[in-house]
Amino acid sequence: MPVLPVTPLDPAAPSLRRAYDPRQPLLRPYVREADSFRDGRSSPREVLEAGIDRITRDEPAIRAFVTHDFAAARRAADAATARWKEGRPLSPVDGMPIVVKDMIATAGLPTQMNNPIYAGWDARTDAACVFAMREAGAVILGKTVTTEFACGNSGPTRNPYDSTRTPGGSSSGSAAAVGAGMATLGFGTQTHGSTIRPAGYCGAYALKPTHGALHVGGITPLGATLDHLGLIGASLEDVWASGMAISRIVGGTPPHPGLAGPATAPAPAQPRTLVRLDTLGWSETPDSSRAAFEAAIAALGQAGVRIVDKDNDAEVAALEAALTEIGEFANDLLAWEARWPLAAYRAHGPEMVGGRIHDLLERAARLDPAAYARAVGDRQRLRDRVAAFAGRADGFVMLCSSGPAIQDHAFTGSRNYALPWTLVGAPAFALPLLVAEDLPLGLQIAGFAEQDAEACAIAGWVRDTLLPPHRDH
Amino acid sequence: MPVLPVTPLDPAAPSLRRAYDPRQPLLRPYVREADSFRDGRSSPREVLEAGIDRITRDEPAIRAFVTHDFAAARRAADAATARWKEGRPLSPVDGMPIVVKDMIATAGLPTQMNNPIYAGWDARTDAACVFAMREAGAVILGKTVTTEFACGNSGPTRNPYDSTRTPGGSSSGSAAAVGAGMATLGFGTQTHGSTIRPAGYCGAYALKPTHGALHVGGITPLGATLDHLGLIGASLEDVWASGMAISRIVGGTPPHPGLAGPATAPAPAQPRTLVRLDTLGWSETPDSSRAAFEAAIAALGQAGVRIVDKDNDAEVAALEAALTEIGEFANDLLAWEARWPLAAYRAHGPEMVGGRIHDLLERAARLDPAAYARAVGDRQRLRDRVAAFAGRADGFVMLCSSGPAIQDHAFTGSRNYALPWTLVGAPAFALPLLVAEDLPLGLQIAGFAEQDAEACAIAGWVRDTLLPPHRDH
Repeated sequence: MPVLPVTPLDPAAPSLRRAYDPRQPLLRPYVREADSFRDGRSSPREVLEAGIDRITRDEPAIRAFVTHDFAAARRAADAATARWKEGRPLSPVDGMPIVVKDMIATAGLPTQMNNPIYAGWDARTDAACVFAMREAGAVILGKTVTTEFACGNSGPTRNPYDSTRTPGGSSSGSAAAVGAGMATLGFGTQTHGSTIRPAGYCGAYALKPTHGALHVGGITPLGATLDHLGLIGASLEDVWASGMAISRIVGGTPPHPGLAGPATAPAPAQPRTLVRLDTLGWSETPDSSRAAFEAAIAALGQAGVRIVDKDNDAEVAALEAALTEIGEFANDLLAWEARWPLAAYRAHGPEMVGGRIHDLLERAARLDPAAYARAVGDRQRLRDRVAAFAGRADGFVMLCSSGPAIQDHAFTGSRNYALPWTLVGAPAFALPLLVAEDLPLGLQIAGFAEQDAEACAIAGWVRDTLLPPHRDH
Repeated sequence: MPVLPVTPLDPAAPSLRRAYDPRQPLLRPYVREADSFRDGRSSPREVLEAGIDRITRDEPAIRAFVTHDFAAARRAADAATARWKEGRPLSPVDGMPIVVKDMIATAGLPTQMNNPIYAGWDARTDAACVFAMREAGAVILGKTVTTEFACGNSGPTRNPYDSTRTPGGSSSGSAAAVGAGMATLGFGTQTHGSTIRPAGYCGAYALKPTHGALHVGGITPLGATLDHLGLIGASLEDVWASGMAISRIVGGTPPHPGLAGPATAPAPAQPRTLVRLDTLGWSETPDSSRAAFEAAIAALGQAGVRIVDKDNDAEVAALEAALTEIGEFANDLLAWEARWPLAAYRAHGPEMVGGRIHDLLERAARLDPAAYARAVGDRQRLRDRVAAFAGRADGFVMLCSSGPAIQDHAFTGSRNYALPWTLVGAPAFALPLLVAEDLPLGLQIAGFAEQDAEACAIAGWVRDTLLPPHRDH
């Protein structure tokens, strides 16, 4: 079991800077290559080797990985290559190279959670999502950097487009690895904003599904009613097919029966009406990012979508007002639910956990069951408010983050655009379609609970509208 | 980290047989000794040593433990002894010796789940319940035998009253250790019948709380919507105080805020009306056990409780009829929810898991999300049917098991009396008040969801009525 200790940011690491072009991303989509895998024009092994080449070239600057096992990955990719050639792939994602956030249990690779308590820790058995993807033929390439226990100190990972910037967090390594073209899919988690934000920062697609629709078993819990498995991928088709492969094999977190829909991405479908949301993040968003978002909204309008927003719709204005209030109860939910395991980590010695964990535990100590129940009620009212749009709109459009990745490493960025749909518990997609400051800027398409496939169809149409599919993106 | 491998039943182990007298049990209640701990007539260390003496004497025949650490336990007991003497105990359970089912994570002792995949496995951090009890001052004495992953092969544990009989399962070791007087409290789990049944078999008290009211974090999941933390203890007061200590520190499984009620057991309260339930277990119950139950029902009636049953109440008859149908959907719920992790264990090699796990996975393979949704619906109808008694009755009374512990070791006994309240998700108490065939026979008092304290008050009154408190039991 190879163990690479997590190390702090290395000031001597090579630097990296490249302009983002959504028509020429570093991403390499996978499921669209099925025909090539069948007829031998390409193969899962070739895809893996291309990713390993990227790792060899860029990992010293990006530091996405904690652990990897190229030999095991090559064996798995060769087996998948043979299955495709024989016309009997295990699933649409057979052979897909994937990376796993180091909060998620894996057999054969340690699960270390960016904290020394878990140095070299062997979980022995795969988390539900890892088990399912292995059963579906996917190739486990390695474990990726997380912030400490997905809520504490940042890791060493840097943004694949600019090594002076954060990749976002807490799914830092998975977003950076996928954005850098090292792997097709990365498992992340989202408890406040940890999938949608880093995907947008790193130029990757992502799905944060309906809460519970993808099984979180074997993911170390943080906030049990907030934790989502997030899928960060090279294309919308890759994240959707991966989600369905997981759902088919392990379903959702009980009692959720699992993500529902077609095995491969639904056909793009034009929405009649989208709700534009500025959220609390707008005030933090730089002008160039605002301009990119306004241009996208205008393009969607020109394509025939009715856009409702706080200026032309009272219900949207009321929702926007409600979104300015969510930070406090979101923090209460997280602090209360995370008391265990965070306090149990702290019991190893107060010096064994970082300052953010101490802060969360301090907040938790000021709460009681009644305060927690109030926060649960506040969240339910937000859910009800969003659900009430069901007859009036087909989805929601907003940014993934308050501008492109910030020039910071200790702080992984504002959660203000990602937090709302975490709390709503409904599907959200990150689409790396926009550019600001030559960096990726994610557009977020969000939907209604249990309607992940419908939201995916809208996201596909938005992608095709903003980035017409005559090119291979 | 001491590791004792789980070994199969040893035919050369010493045998043991003793008659059960509920007035002279092997149990040693703890929280009632608070005054003695304060004034030095007794001490947590003395209680611990008495338990260790029992272990030394009886463990070769009973085999309740997988791992123990007497040295660490003695240090913890001495610290608690000092706190009581100084008049500053951490909680009513400060110093209580407890044992932990080997499905539950512990820092400092391995968590092995009676399967070689987890031989010597170190979870590194305490489960929520273990963390909470440690914070409350309790003394972790060791890990106890579970059936394989709480659903598969039986372990080596024997009944503390007759070594030719099962202790019940899957919480075999915790029930045997508490019943044998080795520890005050044992953590168990109940997914179908694994706390109430073994407690009854071993002459111990137990609480299976409202589903979610005691945090299951750090307990290896089996059926996520079925799994309960179960408390097996030397007295009703011990299990209640332990539950409240846990709830105060870690609460319930989110979003449940946690067990609610007084820090120590509520005063006994006479119910006006109890529903007598025979369940599907009655047809399996030998005459002598039926007679013991009938005598208890008669005594409750003589004490002024109105008993309603299937012969004098149409709603009870309808509930009894419904209870004959629960086996199938209970098995569907378990099989579907347990696919992960059971399939991930099996991925280590089909020979690495026992036959029952293969059987469960075969059942799961025949199910689909629609079948699972039907099972969830069936359970909800049972819950609604039980909740509808709220205005008409104060609680429910039935046996814990179909007679005393059976003469078997591979099979841990019928679940028919324990399964109903697992599915109902409401509180149930095991009371070791009855005797049949010179063995313990548990009486079960069950209540309404979220009314654990009310059910405890009734259980206390039933105990005092059937076993008048002039003696020290």
